[in-house]
Amino acid sequence: MQETQVEKLNQDIKSLQEQLEKAEQKIATTEKNFEKLREKFDLVFKNTIDIFMLVSAVTGKIFDVSSSVKEHLGYESDELIGKKFVELFPPEAEAQGEVIFDKIRIFDGVFAEETFYKNDGSICFMDLSAFMGEMAGTKVIFATLRDVSERKKRIEEVEKVKKMEGALAMSGAVSHELNQPLQIIIGFSDLIIKDKIDKEKLDVYLSKIKIQSKRMSKIIGKLTNITEYKTLKYIDSFEIMDINGTEEETENQNLT
Amino acid sequence: MQETQVEKLNQDIKSLQEQLEKAEQKIATTEKNFEKLREKFDLVFKNTIDIFMLVSAVTGKIFDVSSSVKEHLGYESDELIGKKFVELFPPEAEAQGEVIFDKIRIFDGVFAEETFYKNDGSICFMDLSAFMGEMAGTKVIFATLRDVSERKKRIEEVEKVKKMEGALAMSGAVSHELNQPLQIIIGFSDLIIKDKIDKEKLDVYLSKIKIQSKRMSKIIGKLTNITEYKTLKYIDSFEIMDINGTEEETENQNLT
Repeated sequence: MQETQVEKLNQDIKSLQEQLEKAEQKIATTEKNFEKLREKFDLVFKNTIDIFMLVSAVTGKIFDVSSSVKEHLGYESDELIGKKFVELFPPEAEAQGEVIFDKIRIFDGVFAEETFYKNDGSICFMDLSAFMGEMAGTKVIFATLRDVSERKKRIEEVEKVKKMEGALAMSGAVSHELNQPLQIIIGFSDLIIKDKIDKEKLDVYLSKIKIQSKRMSKIIGKLTNITEYKTLKYIDSFEIMDINGTEEETENQNLT
Repeated sequence: MQETQVEKLNQDIKSLQEQLEKAEQKIATTEKNFEKLREKFDLVFKNTIDIFMLVSAVTGKIFDVSSSVKEHLGYESDELIGKKFVELFPPEAEAQGEVIFDKIRIFDGVFAEETFYKNDGSICFMDLSAFMGEMAGTKVIFATLRDVSERKKRIEEVEKVKKMEGALAMSGAVSHELNQPLQIIIGFSDLIIKDKIDKEKLDVYLSKIKIQSKRMSKIIGKLTNITEYKTLKYIDSFEIMDINGTEEETENQNLT
């Protein structure tokens, strides 16, 4: 009887030891998986060029933010935790921040260019993408902020270049269209001044001047009524505005 | 002796049970932490608007990709796992893809607009940000791809609008500058034609026509040599090109 009891207890011990071993294995596996996932999460969240932000959809407060926020907005991650997301909008746009925040909640996501507030008080242009998700049963917002100040500056430069391009295409067309009638006017007025001419010839020359003046007037009138940006290939692959369209070309050619 | 043995065994069992209980608590905690982190990771990785991609820096193969890749590039996440990152570049740019991949490895990061290859064979413009990190002791690349096709289209539209703006500013200036001398030419040639005028008056009128023609010629010459985009406020807040600069203004005013 005593022997059986000891035997049974030893069996219990053996079984418990096995269970414990299994549990320890499970701990090791789970910890290893956790560690792997943590490395992956850190890789994605901590080193991103964009700013990743997790915000409670209930309180509107930031509870996690990638360290990249330092580079773009000048805040340490810790400084922002517990702050309201809308506080990142410039003072005059904080109300708009609330609107955006509401939009995220209502539409479950938003993608927009917004102005954000740096720690030093200056502003920063950011592409904001945000959407709703759930963590531990609570609604949370995951927001990505991408600094687009540089891009904005580049686009402004491109806009200026394009305006110049348009202006030069127009001036090229103007020069092309007006030079010829103008040379005719100058030529005939020179002829009248230099030569002693009879009344008949004078009338012919003057009518030429008159026709070319009217032609120029018509061209100038057309210039300011152009509604479509259309160009023609010109000398040296330079593009000039197509100010005539097709129907006018024949008319102009007949005038010279 | 027998009693002590049983007692000792019971103590061992008790100790083992305690250890097991603790281990089970540890499992529960670790699993809970894992679950929490998994939710957080999924929130960031799985639902993002951007495409998140994890690539082995050694083999160049994708080992994780957010499901958003379906929407923008048309691939299921699973389809891409095991594929080489550079295969996402269009066939003709695959070599360039290798260059970018090398850049990421050398500079530990890259931020550029690149052309990617959709599943249907069409191309897609993406902002690519990527950097190097480590996971389980191996070098990995975390890449973020943002679809900018829409933005690119919008910029192209803006560029066209800006070109038109430049062209209209120029045509406004041309019209403003040339109309007056042209009206003077027309006016004097009308006067000569309609009135019977003496030789002296004829010379005066013709010299007026000549002066205005030269003035126009000078203006047109200037138009094509403009190097800076500068505008003046005009009627109804319409902007016209400033084709004169300051030093010419006085001269022009004296000519009328």
